[in-house]
Amino acid sequence: MKKFEEKTIKSEQVFNGKIINLQVDDVTLPNGKTAKRELVKHPGAVAVIPITKDNKIIFVEQYRKPLEKSLIEIPAGKLDSNENPLAAAVRELEEETGYTTNDLSFVTSFYTSPGFADELVHIYVTDQLVKMENPPQGDDDEFVEVLELTLDEAKEYVVEERIHDAKTNYAILYLHALGRL
Amino acid sequence: MKKFEEKTIKSEQVFNGKIINLQVDDVTLPNGKTAKRELVKHPGAVAVIPITKDNKIIFVEQYRKPLEKSLIEIPAGKLDSNENPLAAAVRELEEETGYTTNDLSFVTSFYTSPGFADELVHIYVTDQLVKMENPPQGDDDEFVEVLELTLDEAKEYVVEERIHDAKTNYAILYLHALGRL
Repeated sequence: MKKFEEKTIKSEQVFNGKIINLQVDDVTLPNGKTAKRELVKHPGAVAVIPITKDNKIIFVEQYRKPLEKSLIEIPAGKLDSNENPLAAAVRELEEETGYTTNDLSFVTSFYTSPGFADELVHIYVTDQLVKMENPPQGDDDEFVEVLELTLDEAKEYVVEERIHDAKTNYAILYLHALGRL
Repeated sequence: MKKFEEKTIKSEQVFNGKIINLQVDDVTLPNGKTAKRELVKHPGAVAVIPITKDNKIIFVEQYRKPLEKSLIEIPAGKLDSNENPLAAAVRELEEETGYTTNDLSFVTSFYTSPGFADELVHIYVTDQLVKMENPPQGDDDEFVEVLELTLDEAKEYVVEERIHDAKTNYAILYLHALGRL
């Protein structure tokens, strides 16, 4: 028995989408009562902190429909089914920035919102970037603008809330703590 | 016109739950084509980094149904409708740990997963904790166990992936960067 485990009595598939699925489970609580749990299923995601030779960080700006505004984020994307996270990180870096690399170090991984979603993000860092002559195209419904910022500029964007998401805030704090930019 | 704005053509409410709502929007892309966007609506959340007089951090362990396992996290919870985040942070601290405070400093806020959800988490920190004689009860479907850890112990739990979510990983990196524990 896992600690405080909630046993599934019934599981209802509410929605099957392109990015997420939604299911509602009836569960038995540790005290014997029952409750409903709303669960978003997500394939997981990867993100890369790309550092240029002149110590800038490469970001992408894109429109985020859930927020009805654009955010500046580190390059990232969702895993294709059964895709290796490291391979996915290289793919997203190439598609979104036009750079590739032979050296990606794992930084950390975390669940973005374990209360309602199973999305796990894997974060990598590289300072070994090579400009590609013919970078692969990304999804045809994704429009991103690439920008390079110093760490100080990026911190200013955090204050202005133009950088405002978990993985990118984490990345900036990580580089700050590392003290190398 | 916002950068790369995606104009809504149609918006369909798929699910209205206790914690989240789900809607699917048809949008016009910057190139004139159309696409579907799957959007999870969430009221937002708060989290607190509670530091004791002997420099330990207070965590709560709870079962996370989306992951089918328990995680050790900083105290947190969702906002009630129109609730002030600071007031919500005090409430969650009291309900989950049995401590209260008159001094909560804002650390940062971030969207947990802007690709599909609008959840915004507000993070606070306090080292001014007062044990309550009669702490308020939390939701009757929440079962949490309180534990106090040193920063080094918490870092070990990150390695073991018992601490493994965005807000808590951020909190630990924040305390590490601060260098005060």
